Amino acid sequence: MARVEIKTLFDDVSAYQEQKVTVSGWVKTIRDSKALGFMELNDGSCFKNLQIVFEDNRIDNFKEVTKFNVGSAVTVTGDLVLTPQAKQPFEIHADSVVLEGASSNDYPLQKKRHSMEFLRSIAHLRPRANTFSAVFRVRSVAAFAIHKFFNERGFVYAHTPLITGSDCEGAGEMFRVTTLDAKNPPLCEDGSVDYSQDFFGKPTSLTVSGQLEAECMAMAFGKVYTFGPTFRAENSNTTRHAAEFWMIEPEIAFADLAQDMELARDMVKYVLAYVLEQCPDEMQFFNNFFDKGLIERLKALVDSEFAHVTYTEAIEILEQHKEQFDYPVYWGCDLQSEHERYLTEQVFKCPVFVTDYPKEIKAFYMRLNDDGKTVAAMDMLVPGIGELIGGSQREERLEVLEARIRELGMDPEDYSWYLDLRRFGGTKHAGFGLGFERMIMYITGVSNIRDVLPFPRTTGTAEY
Amino acid sequence: MARVEIKTLFDDVSAYQEQKVTVSGWVKTIRDSKALGFMELNDGSCFKNLQIVFEDNRIDNFKEVTKFNVGSAVTVTGDLVLTPQAKQPFEIHADSVVLEGASSNDYPLQKKRHSMEFLRSIAHLRPRANTFSAVFRVRSVAAFAIHKFFNERGFVYAHTPLITGSDCEGAGEMFRVTTLDAKNPPLCEDGSVDYSQDFFGKPTSLTVSGQLEAECMAMAFGKVYTFGPTFRAENSNTTRHAAEFWMIEPEIAFADLAQDMELARDMVKYVLAYVLEQCPDEMQFFNNFFDKGLIERLKALVDSEFAHVTYTEAIEILEQHKEQFDYPVYWGCDLQSEHERYLTEQVFKCPVFVTDYPKEIKAFYMRLNDDGKTVAAMDMLVPGIGELIGGSQREERLEVLEARIRELGMDPEDYSWYLDLRRFGGTKHAGFGLGFERMIMYITGVSNIRDVLPFPRTTGTAEY
Repeated sequence: MARVEIKTLFDDVSAYQEQKVTVSGWVKTIRDSKALGFMELNDGSCFKNLQIVFEDNRIDNFKEVTKFNVGSAVTVTGDLVLTPQAKQPFEIHADSVVLEGASSNDYPLQKKRHSMEFLRSIAHLRPRANTFSAVFRVRSVAAFAIHKFFNERGFVYAHTPLITGSDCEGAGEMFRVTTLDAKNPPLCEDGSVDYSQDFFGKPTSLTVSGQLEAECMAMAFGKVYTFGPTFRAENSNTTRHAAEFWMIEPEIAFADLAQDMELARDMVKYVLAYVLEQCPDEMQFFNNFFDKGLIERLKALVDSEFAHVTYTEAIEILEQHKEQFDYPVYWGCDLQSEHERYLTEQVFKCPVFVTDYPKEIKAFYMRLNDDGKTVAAMDMLVPGIGELIGGSQREERLEVLEARIRELGMDPEDYSWYLDLRRFGGTKHAGFGLGFERMIMYITGVSNIRDVLPFPRTTGTAEY
Repeated sequence: MARVEIKTLFDDVSAYQEQKVTVSGWVKTIRDSKALGFMELNDGSCFKNLQIVFEDNRIDNFKEVTKFNVGSAVTVTGDLVLTPQAKQPFEIHADSVVLEGASSNDYPLQKKRHSMEFLRSIAHLRPRANTFSAVFRVRSVAAFAIHKFFNERGFVYAHTPLITGSDCEGAGEMFRVTTLDAKNPPLCEDGSVDYSQDFFGKPTSLTVSGQLEAECMAMAFGKVYTFGPTFRAENSNTTRHAAEFWMIEPEIAFADLAQDMELARDMVKYVLAYVLEQCPDEMQFFNNFFDKGLIERLKALVDSEFAHVTYTEAIEILEQHKEQFDYPVYWGCDLQSEHERYLTEQVFKCPVFVTDYPKEIKAFYMRLNDDGKTVAAMDMLVPGIGELIGGSQREERLEVLEARIRELGMDPEDYSWYLDLRRFGGTKHAGFGLGFERMIMYITGVSNIRDVLPFPRTTGTAEY
């Protein structure tokens, strides 16, 4: 008899009621008394479990089944029976219970509350725990929402390279990628490492951003986005930093900062609405166990206006409340998380874009404003987390960009291909970056980045 | 006046006919005679160009516009006029032509045929050339088709890690990922490199496959897939190998090799049908300039039955034609590209699955058949290219898998987490791998992998 997925039953139970069905899945709980037993089965097709009732007078291996351990894989055939009086809407009365794969008494995921630390130590099994079943499904659904959003708007998905030989990213410490002998690398006559013998004939690293390559694509396709892994070799052992994480970076031509903000706002609203719609059980679980106000806050954001304030105005506001902050507030300072959250949570009580930051605290490629002091940058701040997105209009004026590169003591020659984009049909354009894990933490209420990545890589940890 | 994308005009010209519209884009060609000029504009929203007519008696900067170089970015406002007698269905009669970003006489992409080698040397500009405009849009559309296919079937998208500390992949040479000093790495007392001081506290590499981690996820979610970058540090300077490429790896629980083949067949048909439907202009371009039989062959595959032959039967067939081949054919040999193509093109004249290969030429995790000699592996061979997909049912029996690991001289202890999947509710399961670039080459007829990756990384090359 062909197997039916548990999600299919929950989606349309009327098509199966009072019929024989076959299901396969893993035993989440099992108990029995005398001649009657119950097990909850999950097959991964949805968050919900299916209750199986097995009776000694109906199946021929009752004794055996009562000894199945949690975690066992089984296939069950039986009658689907509606149970309108019970907690669950229906259950299966088993005619047969077949063991597909045994589990054992030392299965680490027994039915009890486990610490997140312990669950991290069994990352190969934790997707079976409720929390991670919910997190990784939301992650998958959110990823699809992002592709769907950009696809509906005609964006081209650009696969920018991860191994980079380019020196011009400069947004953090990088991992070296090499095939040279670790202990005795070949040396040049001057004693330096001879990278001409390395795989790519020069030093290479793992990228920290696909933006510059995405700009090349945007100057051909008009609207592009990247969605792929990114790396930082920063030795920061925090709950918000991972060495390997996923990032979304759209880039739009013939567009200014205002259009960039619209795009960022629309994307965030789209993804939140899509996850709320597609993952009601998972979101209810997070709302119950991680953050009581989660669903309400996300729904509010979907319907919310977004405020807009310039950095200069924001500093003026924050200076009036400087006694609230650990870090000093002054024009020219980088906004700290406490400042960002105060703005979005206390002052505006809604998501807010802060724009036009001092050029000194932003990247070289951001477009210089007419005041000569600020650049057309924007950060999106949201309640509960602070900065979710950072973006900017890019400097499209060749001579201004070259001057800025020189001003920062860098060599325009290293950026010749990037400058070519301004030499040949450069247009105004803009883009932003969204750390995918930060968004998943925001959506789920899970507070440690290690718990939204299936196999997290952080300082000192690269298991599996 | 709000800008309209060129694709929007082509999709529904009736909504715009005889109206004023504003378009922005890049000049692909420009010519003039006396008081009349023509330019073709492309804005990246579609493959088609838009014809602009500009006249001295209608725009106030005619002389200036005639001097615009190919590659310039412009914004044009004017009347949309239907041209049923002309090659193009409509054109814009300009009221104004504004230069957004100049180009110059030394713009490398002048209107002429360029060699693929030359275009590779300007990878930052080549997305603007017709070939790459078509290739990278098809790439994007095919990527979306893959996500859409798996999403519709309820698969969870699993982000498996790229940096791996696991030794157990063993499917090729790997890149080392490190933050240790390249010239003077810290050493242990025994003189070996002290990896405890490396970023992750041990040696790490770039992954060659996400399969083993995907299996962990499949044992929770039932059906998962990966789609992300993968790496090989193989020094093979061919048209088919890149050091960084994208791979799709689905993994399905409670499924055997037959279901795995069905999934592979359905996925390939779905992606081809989707690209043919979504990219008619691009596909016509490839059919005209790269492979005259391309569209016909792809359409045939979408409607085709897939043949199925065991390896043993395939060898018997090939042995009858051994004079055709450079490489010897005998039971136990690895099939070469010439053998694969002979089977699919000459013998079956349709796509064919070859299954049940000798265990010696396949990976340790493939399920041992009852004959003790072959494993439940499958390769999908397609006309014109040979192997497109390789997959297998995985060995779910703990003791068989452990024995195989020992037989190959490996240490089961190194695989303890992978073996745990068999200790705790292991079920029969299967999966496959599809190299995304190979599929794009198959779809487009482009014969060099360097031309289907936006910024290819190959031996000796990691520009941009």
